[in-house]
Amino acid sequence: MSAPSCSASEFAPLLGGAGNLSAAAAQYICSQFDTVALQFADAASAIDTTYLLFSTYLVFVMQLGFAMLCAGSVRAKNTMNIMLTNVLDAAAGALFYYLFGFAFAFGTPSNGFIGRHFFGLKRVPEPGFDYSYFLYQWAFAIAAAGITSGSIAERTQFVAYLIYSSFLTGFVYPIISHWFWSADGWASPSRPVNESLLFRSGVIDFAGSGVVHLVGGIAGLWGALIEGPRMGRFDDAGRSVALRGHSASLVVLGTFLLWFGWYGFNPGSFITIYKSYGPIGSIHGQWSAVGRTAVTTTLAGCTAALTTLFGKRLQTGHWNVIDVCNGLLGGFAAITAGCSVVDPWAAVICGFMAAWVLIGLNKLAAKVKFDDPLEAAQLHGGCGAWGIIFTALFAREKYVNEVYMGRPGRPYGLFMGGGGRLLGAHIVQILVIAGWVSCTMGPLFYALHLIGLLRISPEDEMAGMDLTRHGGSAYVYDAEDPGRGKDGATTAGGFMLKSANVRVEPNSGATTDQV
Amino acid sequence: MSAPSCSASEFAPLLGGAGNLSAAAAQYICSQFDTVALQFADAASAIDTTYLLFSTYLVFVMQLGFAMLCAGSVRAKNTMNIMLTNVLDAAAGALFYYLFGFAFAFGTPSNGFIGRHFFGLKRVPEPGFDYSYFLYQWAFAIAAAGITSGSIAERTQFVAYLIYSSFLTGFVYPIISHWFWSADGWASPSRPVNESLLFRSGVIDFAGSGVVHLVGGIAGLWGALIEGPRMGRFDDAGRSVALRGHSASLVVLGTFLLWFGWYGFNPGSFITIYKSYGPIGSIHGQWSAVGRTAVTTTLAGCTAALTTLFGKRLQTGHWNVIDVCNGLLGGFAAITAGCSVVDPWAAVICGFMAAWVLIGLNKLAAKVKFDDPLEAAQLHGGCGAWGIIFTALFAREKYVNEVYMGRPGRPYGLFMGGGGRLLGAHIVQILVIAGWVSCTMGPLFYALHLIGLLRISPEDEMAGMDLTRHGGSAYVYDAEDPGRGKDGATTAGGFMLKSANVRVEPNSGATTDQV
Amino acid sequence: MSAPSCSASEFAPLLGGAGNLSAAAAQYICSQFDTVALQFADAASAIDTTYLLFSTYLVFVMQLGFAMLCAGSVRAKNTMNIMLTNVLDAAAGALFYYLFGFAFAFGTPSNGFIGRHFFGLKRVPEPGFDYSYFLYQWAFAIAAAGITSGSIAERTQFVAYLIYSSFLTGFVYPIISHWFWSADGWASPSRPVNESLLFRSGVIDFAGSGVVHLVGGIAGLWGALIEGPRMGRFDDAGRSVALRGHSASLVVLGTFLLWFGWYGFNPGSFITIYKSYGPIGSIHGQWSAVGRTAVTTTLAGCTAALTTLFGKRLQTGHWNVIDVCNGLLGGFAAITAGCSVVDPWAAVICGFMAAWVLIGLNKLAAKVKFDDPLEAAQLHGGCGAWGIIFTALFAREKYVNEVYMGRPGRPYGLFMGGGGRLLGAHIVQILVIAGWVSCTMGPLFYALHLIGLLRISPEDEMAGMDLTRHGGSAYVYDAEDPGRGKDGATTAGGFMLKSANVRVEPNSGATTDQV
Repeated sequence: MSAPSCSASEFAPLLGGAGNLSAAAAQYICSQFDTVALQFADAASAIDTTYLLFSTYLVFVMQLGFAMLCAGSVRAKNTMNIMLTNVLDAAAGALFYYLFGFAFAFGTPSNGFIGRHFFGLKRVPEPGFDYSYFLYQWAFAIAAAGITSGSIAERTQFVAYLIYSSFLTGFVYPIISHWFWSADGWASPSRPVNESLLFRSGVIDFAGSGVVHLVGGIAGLWGALIEGPRMGRFDDAGRSVALRGHSASLVVLGTFLLWFGWYGFNPGSFITIYKSYGPIGSIHGQWSAVGRTAVTTTLAGCTAALTTLFGKRLQTGHWNVIDVCNGLLGGFAAITAGCSVVDPWAAVICGFMAAWVLIGLNKLAAKVKFDDPLEAAQLHGGCGAWGIIFTALFAREKYVNEVYMGRPGRPYGLFMGGGGRLLGAHIVQILVIAGWVSCTMGPLFYALHLIGLLRISPEDEMAGMDLTRHGGSAYVYDAEDPGRGKDGATTAGGFMLKSANVRVEPNSGATTDQV
Repeated sequence: MSAPSCSASEFAPLLGGAGNLSAAAAQYICSQFDTVALQFADAASAIDTTYLLFSTYLVFVMQLGFAMLCAGSVRAKNTMNIMLTNVLDAAAGALFYYLFGFAFAFGTPSNGFIGRHFFGLKRVPEPGFDYSYFLYQWAFAIAAAGITSGSIAERTQFVAYLIYSSFLTGFVYPIISHWFWSADGWASPSRPVNESLLFRSGVIDFAGSGVVHLVGGIAGLWGALIEGPRMGRFDDAGRSVALRGHSASLVVLGTFLLWFGWYGFNPGSFITIYKSYGPIGSIHGQWSAVGRTAVTTTLAGCTAALTTLFGKRLQTGHWNVIDVCNGLLGGFAAITAGCSVVDPWAAVICGFMAAWVLIGLNKLAAKVKFDDPLEAAQLHGGCGAWGIIFTALFAREKYVNEVYMGRPGRPYGLFMGGGGRLLGAHIVQILVIAGWVSCTMGPLFYALHLIGLLRISPEDEMAGMDLTRHGGSAYVYDAEDPGRGKDGATTAGGFMLKSANVRVEPNSGATTDQV
Repeated sequence: MSAPSCSASEFAPLLGGAGNLSAAAAQYICSQFDTVALQFADAASAIDTTYLLFSTYLVFVMQLGFAMLCAGSVRAKNTMNIMLTNVLDAAAGALFYYLFGFAFAFGTPSNGFIGRHFFGLKRVPEPGFDYSYFLYQWAFAIAAAGITSGSIAERTQFVAYLIYSSFLTGFVYPIISHWFWSADGWASPSRPVNESLLFRSGVIDFAGSGVVHLVGGIAGLWGALIEGPRMGRFDDAGRSVALRGHSASLVVLGTFLLWFGWYGFNPGSFITIYKSYGPIGSIHGQWSAVGRTAVTTTLAGCTAALTTLFGKRLQTGHWNVIDVCNGLLGGFAAITAGCSVVDPWAAVICGFMAAWVLIGLNKLAAKVKFDDPLEAAQLHGGCGAWGIIFTALFAREKYVNEVYMGRPGRPYGLFMGGGGRLLGAHIVQILVIAGWVSCTMGPLFYALHLIGLLRISPEDEMAGMDLTRHGGSAYVYDAEDPGRGKDGATTAGGFMLKSANVRVEPNSGATTDQV
């Protein structure tokens, strides 16, 4: 923001008159302008914080979106389990991120690999690191863990979840976000001007196709690979059997909430909105780039949804809302890296391709008997990786130089005439993320597997985790009343056999509850 | 926004001293003030864009609200179908609106009937037409199609939906919004001062009781009329039989989400919030009008809800939450036209009447055997039309002149002493909307009907569209596990007979899935 | 906000030159600066209103959160009933609060006990009392009634609900909010500087652990006590029998929505965000305090959730998502009083203790056979009371003096070295709230009980209120079609026996509906 810059020493001679008086007059006026400039700085703080906080709240809604999407996508018998993991991603994530995650990620100055300040929010607030910025980054951190829990749903021990989720949110993810998003990070596009950028470009992963989605997807990939498919997911002849989720309404609810939240995720990643791209007073500023980012996000998701609708119709012969929802989310995951630096027409291409990436990877997964109940590895991993490449092909010169100011002449998209350096950096990003997550989460999952902590027993998997580990079924639609002295459980039909709305032990008459 | 206006030529003589020096001094100071003025312009861009974008996100949430409301209001067997239409309204709407809808609606300069610029967002951003404005208008465009899909739920072929929905969102609706909302529109209240207004007034349909709700309602009316009622909706004796929706929880969820979103729809329609109504520095400005609009919206909906509660209690003998939800939405649809130009007490009257309009139209619909599963034609059409009339009766002079600045002495509400010109314009609005939608959507639905593309077969209607067209039931609450080698489908009770959570073909052992 | 303050009389002499000319020149310049100052005032109005309105919308979402939480926590047969109360809390609350509630609460000047202006929003807007402020306070008012309806769920007559809810929202709650939140209130910390503060401190209940949560909790306590437990809640041997809610998905949905809304409740309670804590242009301002408040809120809730997870695991042997959700909400209820004046680390302590308060009170409730289906009295009452004490112990000097400006040297937290005066005031707050609510709501519930209007009949309780009072079950998952001429009701299994998706009277063939 360029403030009025009144210079008393420049101004005084212009006033003519007696020297002393002129100096005092100039001083007087210029100090007024200084006050005005400071007031604009305060206004910027108020506007930008408002913008950032409400964006944060939207990103937080994505956690609810994940919870509903996951719940609807698993069988009813594992609903309590998956929803608990989603609540805990947010809750445990808040404590870890407060204690050390934020410090690892953004604790500048650092060595380029890991941050080392701001533990327990010490030194906060300081310029550029206010509480709202911490909260925004927390909302991102918990998203990665949410992605992974989808991949290994319906068969993972709760204790294993607690362990890998803490490790991912508190250590693996913060370090990756440091590399690409902290001004200190070795692959950041915003390093100080006196330090060199990776391939003289740095990685443009604006809102995290790589940092969030690819990370969550690769972690999920290893978890699901090591656990193996759910019982019954592939029949004796090796053919794929759909284990359908229990509620399409929850899936649609979750998808729309994720869409809603993505408007905090992508446009919100500008952090500020009151910034002119010059000349001041014109229509060119961050406010316009923020709006454009919301538009590219929308178009990519919507194009992917439509492509999936018709693509799957050709394949399966029906119009499937679940597939459309997944396609939509794939489009969002893909555009997330480049949302701020591409044109709307390019976002349409991004979404179109993302749909086919997801369809292709799902086919591949079925072929190699890879079972991911939420398609999370395919969707967030696959479409996320595509989005990283896409950005390196379609980033537009003007947008790159506006969004990443201060280093004129940056490389941009290969197809836009910007050369291959950005693409080089982005391929490095995919490789190092895949490598780092594989080298940390892979061994962790394998170790849990070896000591028997990873997968639940076949009996538990058959019965469902809600009954065996989480205190009962998520649903009790039976209206039978215990007052009649009858054991509701025995009269309820179907899925309520083992979990009616009263917990009465046949022999003792009644269980005591919390006494 | 009136900026500081420093004039060097006015100021220089005041400084006395040597002429040249004075001129330079005045220049110096005034250029500082010019910078300040430009900075305020930038601040306005940042504040207004923040306001508009978050309003946009709220309006978008209405699409989720519609999805949940519709899902809960239909029978379980058609849930996947109706939710898919809601997702697609948003997704297909985004592409159509990007490619040409926005251009038809706001592509100024135009001939007054249809816009012709901004195709594919070309020329955007330019002053007054930034990306955020496009996105806001997109969120409105998809609402109209959502209304219509409710009217013809549970019996319409999916292909018919794809056709009419595209036509409505991409052509019929944009043109109507051009007439009333684009500064070029022939019935707009904001035409350039050198051009005449309809009845020297123009139509005050602030947020779209007519442009959105009446349009959606009339389109739904024709669709439902041409399709006829659902099977079993009226018995052999011609009496009305309630076909209850499958989940009141989803209805309440959807209603609250629509309420939430309406705060983006109505107050958001100001587009900007940083605008003084003068004198500057006072409490009088758009910020206050925005708040008042949120209040009138709230009061109209709430009054309608309460009126419906007691009105229906008298009629039916019970307290029905579904009726209350519909009454609430009717109140919102009614206040939408006049929300910014009436007093809170008038909003109470608006809501009270809206409830009776809805109750009356529902009685009439049952009498003439009109079946609209969501009451959408009655609610959005009927209450929307009432809202248009209401505005012409109760619009207050002061508010009309503030909200539609620049043409002092505008006509206002008949009951407020403002004469009948506004009422005349508003009656014209109802007639032209009814005419235009009837002449476009009516023939379209009829043509689809004639070529057999409109209504599904009786067998499909009996079985439900989810099973026959959308890949299976939305719900699988059965916990039966396929690993046991038993066909889950045969053991599940009730509604799960045809769609258990495994899709196993008895003869072949297992279906292959996506391979 | 300190504006530029250009004084012509100070400035003119500095310009030297001829006296008259100098005066005119100084006048000219200073009037320019005056305009700038006024423009900042307008900017502040726009920014602060944007901030407040979107915060309001978030608080409103809490009502949806309550509806979903309550719905999921009761048995399926009472879902319509509880959701209707939640819709009506908002709807009836809007009318009452518009007509007189807001006037009682904030109608300044007052006698310190009850406000007496702004009836029907008369005199609004005036400085400090714009429409957006009214709407924000309305969203708070309806929360208290929502809490209470949870306590007495599943057994209260609908008419009783209508009566107590109106009384609570329209009278009991507004008066309490006047005491603590209106600048006139006898216990307010913001009384005019010439008037004395309670214990020279006043009560710091920033967002309402006492004013909202304790009020709702104590009202619920009396209601639940007077009604007695639900049938079957304690068996013949006096042991506690869990009557499980019918949908954990709705509980988790509601909890996340409440979490989302709490970001409007707590940080939003600053009302404004564009306010410097000085020096201007620095990082110190309300924007930072707002962010810190969002952080303390998050940390308290999350810590409570984690504490509950492990605490209940030790007690019951399973990992229960419902308990975790309640723990989370208990943490939020507790931090609400002190959220703006404590450090993040203190929020962790707050949440940790809140979890144990809730666990302990739930144990106690089971022991004394107190039945509160939502644990609302324990959660909002118990954790709310803890939060009031907590604030008096941990409030930090710097934050107290920034947030409650204009009276330097205020008392602060006992453990932070601020002495016992704040604690004294806060103990008074607990006592007067408990007293006032007990003396108003207690007799009301008892009178309703005496005249037989409070509790439903045992037959109704057995059958569920939805069937007997609200027009049928909330859920109809059966796909049976009436077109087949078969009575759907008799073929549907389990809970649908009495409420299939068609309402057909066996003898008459069909009921007429609304004709």
